Amino acid sequence: MRSKGLTSGHSCSCGPNKLTLPPSQGGLATPQLSNWTSAPLLDGTTSEPAYGGSKLVRLFSHPLYNIQTPALGPEERLLQVEQLIDYYRRKVSHWERHMKLYSLAAALANITVTNHEVTYDPDTSWLKFHLGINRYALYSRDDPTVLQLIKDMQSMTVISADYTQDEKALKGACDCTQVVKPSGHHLKLALKMRNLAKAMFKPMRQQRDEETPEDVFYFVDLQRHNAEIAAFHLDRILDFRRVPPVVGRLVNITSEVLKVTQNEDLRAVFFTSPANNTCFFAKCLYVCKTEYAACGSPDLLEGSLSAYLPGLSIAPRISIPSPWIRSYTFTGREEWEVNPFYCDTIKQQYPYNSGNRLLNIIDMSIFDFLIGNMDRHHYEIFTKFGDEGFLLHLDNARGFGKHAKDEMSILSPLSQCCMIKQSTLLRLQLLAQSEFRLSDVMRESLQEDSLRPILTEPHLLALDRRLHKVLRVVHQCVRRLGKDEVITEDFFKSTVTPEAATDGTMQR
Amino acid sequence: MRSKGLTSGHSCSCGPNKLTLPPSQGGLATPQLSNWTSAPLLDGTTSEPAYGGSKLVRLFSHPLYNIQTPALGPEERLLQVEQLIDYYRRKVSHWERHMKLYSLAAALANITVTNHEVTYDPDTSWLKFHLGINRYALYSRDDPTVLQLIKDMQSMTVISADYTQDEKALKGACDCTQVVKPSGHHLKLALKMRNLAKAMFKPMRQQRDEETPEDVFYFVDLQRHNAEIAAFHLDRILDFRRVPPVVGRLVNITSEVLKVTQNEDLRAVFFTSPANNTCFFAKCLYVCKTEYAACGSPDLLEGSLSAYLPGLSIAPRISIPSPWIRSYTFTGREEWEVNPFYCDTIKQQYPYNSGNRLLNIIDMSIFDFLIGNMDRHHYEIFTKFGDEGFLLHLDNARGFGKHAKDEMSILSPLSQCCMIKQSTLLRLQLLAQSEFRLSDVMRESLQEDSLRPILTEPHLLALDRRLHKVLRVVHQCVRRLGKDEVITEDFFKSTVTPEAATDGTMQR
Repeated sequence: MRSKGLTSGHSCSCGPNKLTLPPSQGGLATPQLSNWTSAPLLDGTTSEPAYGGSKLVRLFSHPLYNIQTPALGPEERLLQVEQLIDYYRRKVSHWERHMKLYSLAAALANITVTNHEVTYDPDTSWLKFHLGINRYALYSRDDPTVLQLIKDMQSMTVISADYTQDEKALKGACDCTQVVKPSGHHLKLALKMRNLAKAMFKPMRQQRDEETPEDVFYFVDLQRHNAEIAAFHLDRILDFRRVPPVVGRLVNITSEVLKVTQNEDLRAVFFTSPANNTCFFAKCLYVCKTEYAACGSPDLLEGSLSAYLPGLSIAPRISIPSPWIRSYTFTGREEWEVNPFYCDTIKQQYPYNSGNRLLNIIDMSIFDFLIGNMDRHHYEIFTKFGDEGFLLHLDNARGFGKHAKDEMSILSPLSQCCMIKQSTLLRLQLLAQSEFRLSDVMRESLQEDSLRPILTEPHLLALDRRLHKVLRVVHQCVRRLGKDEVITEDFFKSTVTPEAATDGTMQR
Repeated sequence: MRSKGLTSGHSCSCGPNKLTLPPSQGGLATPQLSNWTSAPLLDGTTSEPAYGGSKLVRLFSHPLYNIQTPALGPEERLLQVEQLIDYYRRKVSHWERHMKLYSLAAALANITVTNHEVTYDPDTSWLKFHLGINRYALYSRDDPTVLQLIKDMQSMTVISADYTQDEKALKGACDCTQVVKPSGHHLKLALKMRNLAKAMFKPMRQQRDEETPEDVFYFVDLQRHNAEIAAFHLDRILDFRRVPPVVGRLVNITSEVLKVTQNEDLRAVFFTSPANNTCFFAKCLYVCKTEYAACGSPDLLEGSLSAYLPGLSIAPRISIPSPWIRSYTFTGREEWEVNPFYCDTIKQQYPYNSGNRLLNIIDMSIFDFLIGNMDRHHYEIFTKFGDEGFLLHLDNARGFGKHAKDEMSILSPLSQCCMIKQSTLLRLQLLAQSEFRLSDVMRESLQEDSLRPILTEPHLLALDRRLHKVLRVVHQCVRRLGKDEVITEDFFKSTVTPEAATDGTMQR
């Protein structure tokens, strides 16, 4: 069907010397292709590329996925080693002091709290993950740290559990005039591991084959732990690397949450169900009701664990409303929904009037379209990297709700602005080829998670269908405006012309 | 299986002259059997009894179902004709005056409200239903009024819609410490018909084959419109007649609710869903969230309509906590749950220490056990009939949640007190016979509702299984304490001894 894209498997014509970062990215060294025959899988193994073998290995071995970030100056890294090590040391000693006092107090109050020792290890995975964050992405393609972090989140002893800051903020009165505000369905918790790694736990609320009812608005949809997991894998496959690592885990909510939490309020929302399962419900002020509880079987509950980013005190981020934000009311319409020339206005406004910000928004909209996430009201960036920083794709649990629905409005940034990064387009075209088919590489990648299967087949196949729709939108833009207007060269100086690249789409 | 009960079909040995009301019921005339060959069905037809024909007709033709209430004195009727007619007239003229003013105000405020004419008809069905309520039951077996009322509720033009008084009372602050209080899932509305009949509308929240999840507490279970309908039919089949008539109806929530309501708050909770269906959600202060909304398709929504009882101003009722109330907390236990001699205490306490009150509670517990309703925290009686009044079995929408579960604790009043009215027992035994099998007569009766099927087969078959369990509990009581202690003769002076009656059970 897609007979010819930019490259095809190993007969790729793009050699290392054909790849450079454009001048607009600053005076960076020439990127290099790493050894593309040994891209690591999430389980830490490597594999020889062979036709008919692992499509995922072949994908990650492809030159497009092996453009190395040049050596980074201090200003291009999010954190400095000394700073973070010092922060970590202080955390460990604070924990030890605190636990001494807390154990005494708990004993007096007759509360049994399991007291786990913490370990101090300057080689620990979360620390390395935090240190690896740079101005290009959250992690490097070939960094084994992510694999170790995933392993740690999957298996390491949980030493404490608490509400997240978001939920702690929910202390005000129950303002029910705000009917469309985020509901109390979020049962997310912050878990701390023995090495002081922190992960956000989102428990399973829905079976894999359950779909979002058609009458439910995107902004009140359930959060799906499997969507969170799948979004991380997709982001990695798209080579964005803007989603912090996420892993599935069977959590024992009695021994790993109830028995280790020091938060009275959290203990208070635990109960035993009529079926003798351990359950807990949201702290939330709107929906403090047991019918919305999450229950173990009797204690074990599936969930996603997402690695925390460095704390805001050492790595501040700002949260910016998306220019394509939805109205979050029943009937309201935002300007972008009614004005086909909306992007012309946006293009003239700071910070979208220069640099990559608008292209980054378009990347995000493609990602959201693929997962079917209509709930991207804000995006976050690290303050340190300024306006050129990459956008974090956090909170993807409302994706993968309806496999049969392709919500074209999510693609509005692309379809209205008619712009796309060349690097993004080339990878999308690669993933539309049967040898690297997106659903196949996703299926393979998700197979590595212990909670497999993560997505049902219809959701996997929807990815291919949606990918073709993205490429079709790009094609229409090129036909209307010409490739020079539409396709923005970023790092890629290729022998293959963008026209040939979009040709693949045109044949559909 | 049940070879011999009290009577068997048409070879019944109980002639009219064998039936009397006991002296304790007051100096009443001897009850008579009505013409038992022509009991009316709910659709108004009558049918000749014939072996192999309608089991329901045969049941209602049985002498046990044809003991007529003697002529009633004024004090034995809930309402006097003149009083009610006067009340109705005032309601009609109030409505007309009010609508004149409201139409003006609505026009000024640019609100379109459909203005239906009301009719004044002293022969109207709801008026007759209210006039028929007496100290024995809500309606008489052979009263065609109920059939007409059901027809009217099913088809009559709705002229206004509003929240119920219960929901209007929910105006206080959102007290989320009360985690186990009735949740906001109740979407019930009061609908007024053209003849000023009032009915409570409970919309469909669950498909027929959906079951209550095992981790959900009874007190937060969804309310099921079909349970409300089925409970009315069961109550009629048990010959209790303590449930006001209920009928299923496809309600157009746009034209029959939104367009006729004069309540701003109610209008405000309507919205159009992403699938373009009309939806509304609870006014409730806890759960004012669209994900719990009820949606039409696009406007039509199934629901139950329950006839209103006369207003509290003309027919006051009192609501009394059940002595077997549950704790309504996660871990609390009530005394009846831990003390096997609980009933001995209750038997000595007013009003359970004399008269029929305790036997009425036991009737209610049998009814609740059959439908699987664990949520009977209070019962209501008409003040006028004093302590001897019958108990109203209102609000049965939490029945029929789990077909496979027989919640024996609901039967505690029976199993702990070991008492039952002879009249109740005889009917239960009749319904355990294959010729009158409870599931068969229920299936037949429910077939008359326009929303058929009302119950799935597993729920119908559960009725037979539960009925046998009730009879087994009675049997165990008789074996332990003797029939004279257990079976209380009420209206029945039969040639068949209670022992023979329970024999039927003993054979199982």
